[in-house]
Amino acid sequence: MSAPLDGIVVIDLTHVLAGPVAAIQLADFGATVIKVERPGTGDDTRAFPPFKEGESAYFAALNHGKKSIALDLKSAGDRAVFDRLLGQADVILENFRPGTMEGLGYGWAELSARFPRLVYGAVSGFGHTGPEAGKPAYDMVVQARGGVMSITGEEGGPPVRVGASIGDIAAGMYLVQGVLAALYARDRSGRGAKIDISMLDAQIAIQEHSLAITTATGTPPGPTGARHPTITPFSTFRASDGFFVIAAGNDAIFARLCTALGQPDLANDPRFASNAARCENVHLLKRMIEALTLAEPRAHWIAALEANGVPTGRVQTMAEALADPQVLARNMVLPVEATDGRPAFVAAGNPVKITGLAEPAARQPAPVLDGDREAVLRWLQARESDRADAP
Amino acid sequence: MSAPLDGIVVIDLTHVLAGPVAAIQLADFGATVIKVERPGTGDDTRAFPPFKEGESAYFAALNHGKKSIALDLKSAGDRAVFDRLLGQADVILENFRPGTMEGLGYGWAELSARFPRLVYGAVSGFGHTGPEAGKPAYDMVVQARGGVMSITGEEGGPPVRVGASIGDIAAGMYLVQGVLAALYARDRSGRGAKIDISMLDAQIAIQEHSLAITTATGTPPGPTGARHPTITPFSTFRASDGFFVIAAGNDAIFARLCTALGQPDLANDPRFASNAARCENVHLLKRMIEALTLAEPRAHWIAALEANGVPTGRVQTMAEALADPQVLARNMVLPVEATDGRPAFVAAGNPVKITGLAEPAARQPAPVLDGDREAVLRWLQARESDRADAP
Repeated sequence: MSAPLDGIVVIDLTHVLAGPVAAIQLADFGATVIKVERPGTGDDTRAFPPFKEGESAYFAALNHGKKSIALDLKSAGDRAVFDRLLGQADVILENFRPGTMEGLGYGWAELSARFPRLVYGAVSGFGHTGPEAGKPAYDMVVQARGGVMSITGEEGGPPVRVGASIGDIAAGMYLVQGVLAALYARDRSGRGAKIDISMLDAQIAIQEHSLAITTATGTPPGPTGARHPTITPFSTFRASDGFFVIAAGNDAIFARLCTALGQPDLANDPRFASNAARCENVHLLKRMIEALTLAEPRAHWIAALEANGVPTGRVQTMAEALADPQVLARNMVLPVEATDGRPAFVAAGNPVKITGLAEPAARQPAPVLDGDREAVLRWLQARESDRADAP
Repeated sequence: MSAPLDGIVVIDLTHVLAGPVAAIQLADFGATVIKVERPGTGDDTRAFPPFKEGESAYFAALNHGKKSIALDLKSAGDRAVFDRLLGQADVILENFRPGTMEGLGYGWAELSARFPRLVYGAVSGFGHTGPEAGKPAYDMVVQARGGVMSITGEEGGPPVRVGASIGDIAAGMYLVQGVLAALYARDRSGRGAKIDISMLDAQIAIQEHSLAITTATGTPPGPTGARHPTITPFSTFRASDGFFVIAAGNDAIFARLCTALGQPDLANDPRFASNAARCENVHLLKRMIEALTLAEPRAHWIAALEANGVPTGRVQTMAEALADPQVLARNMVLPVEATDGRPAFVAAGNPVKITGLAEPAARQPAPVLDGDREAVLRWLQARESDRADAP
């Protein structure tokens, strides 16, 4: 099977994070991604730490396999090249502040008139509509406004940021969905569409229990540390060598947990006999379980719990997660080659496994700024003469 | 324009969260979603708190607009109905433990042989391959193993769970991408595909700086509370009435921030003159800024910062987020109607805005368990006789 997006050309004006992660995913589905960068400095993340031999590991992990051409969209010569790129493109992606593309003469109205089949994917802090459409935002601003920080952190403590930049990344994931839906629709309608993703919208959309609790009870939940707000025991516990998770989602699992801990009678203790009772006595139960688990290392408890069918797992550092045998078996940690083919960086694998879609053993290099100019121009010329020659 | 997935039929065997959020998104793109539930109890989340008039607000917010039919896939009569549903389906979704569908005789091998155009989307804790493919997992288990908890929490403190269930939700979002990519490919190949999403894989894929830092430096990052690990000032600050965020991504923004705070000279202080210097003196800078910001409410500071082009925003509770004018203007908070058409619950809107895709003013009700049996059977019969009558 060929890749789902084989033959699809993506012109990628995006920078930093929300847009580039979307472009990576389209590339993983087989699209050709041509990254159009600002001459001189290119994508800001080329200057983001950490560095390895002068190159950004951050940039490498988020831009592997893309082509780069530097174009100044305010210069006539470069605009002519950009117009030719648009003539061959299926998709254009951008994450400028709303209005920027219109200012350049490349707003959706102009582009859809000139290129009716073009799919235009935009991601911005607050979207292209609404009273605050024009405002700038960073990941943390939408994590804060969207409510997720208010439910993340220690119980009774101050709000905490989600360690991964889900303000950007969730938005990028929705952008991919929108582009794919629009490409599918284009096959029927013959026309492209504009996708307008707001990072703030995405934060609302990825919340479930906090939305249900807030709207049904009128009281928004606060942070609950490392435990689930309404299921007990469902949290981290300390073993002698670190933290692990016990996730006892119902009474039967709780009974098996008690057996695994060598305390089968605990399951019949009225203080813990139902989830409601366990939630009421959550702190007592935690102390009682930790009094046991602190005596042995995590491997001991995880083996005992798994033998009893209790969902469990270590709290892993990123180093441990990237060395996890299950993660490696799924091809989720891949070397990114340097331009000379040497493995130089590391990137995540493609999380969307589809039958027949090849799983590469390595990622192609992230592009040097403007490093593919000649190749892109040659490709353009070939595509244009193919079309001209076509009967 | 019709909706992108108009005419697409999704048979949805999923329950709880990772699968149902994927099905909601496909419904938002126009697909017809028929939820096949276990007779008697149905989806576990029908019993999840909070409740309103005996119905789960959680279930309502994640299953609106789906049809429900209860089928026992171990009974011959119900299997016959299920087979007829498959005959009309474009997509089947399931989030059982790996092997369950094979045990029922509905594994991918059987289904693709019988229904070569069927797209089969599966989401599970660890995926359908690898040494731990068969193990159960809950959201928190993959948040823990995937590393995100290790970078979430107070500096030097214990790991903290991300308040939203991103272990489930990120996986569901990738499942949507896979289904859309497979539908697009089917238009060319004539064949469906299987999508195999692992919740643990998804946790690796949504991390960026922690992966880059870990692999480039060898040292995994820890939690940093409510501040960005490598940009300063980029964190929460206290005003007189609560927390807000200041996100000064570069020197120019920092200078404007100093102006907004009435301390323009601070930008030239050698302790704060570069991002590197500010990172070194992050705690001192935070105290100096908070000494100022504590004197006035958030609205004062947000107005001052926005007037100077400094990205900022309140840390909002979920109640505040759901009343945010920008969120409301984007149609992101919608009533879910009860079966009698009365607004009864609340759900998030569709975060993927596509030109021409209608934005409904309300969500249709979540289905009563087996409430659409007659309608589904009538629809099946009509579809089957249409085909039989076709020339």
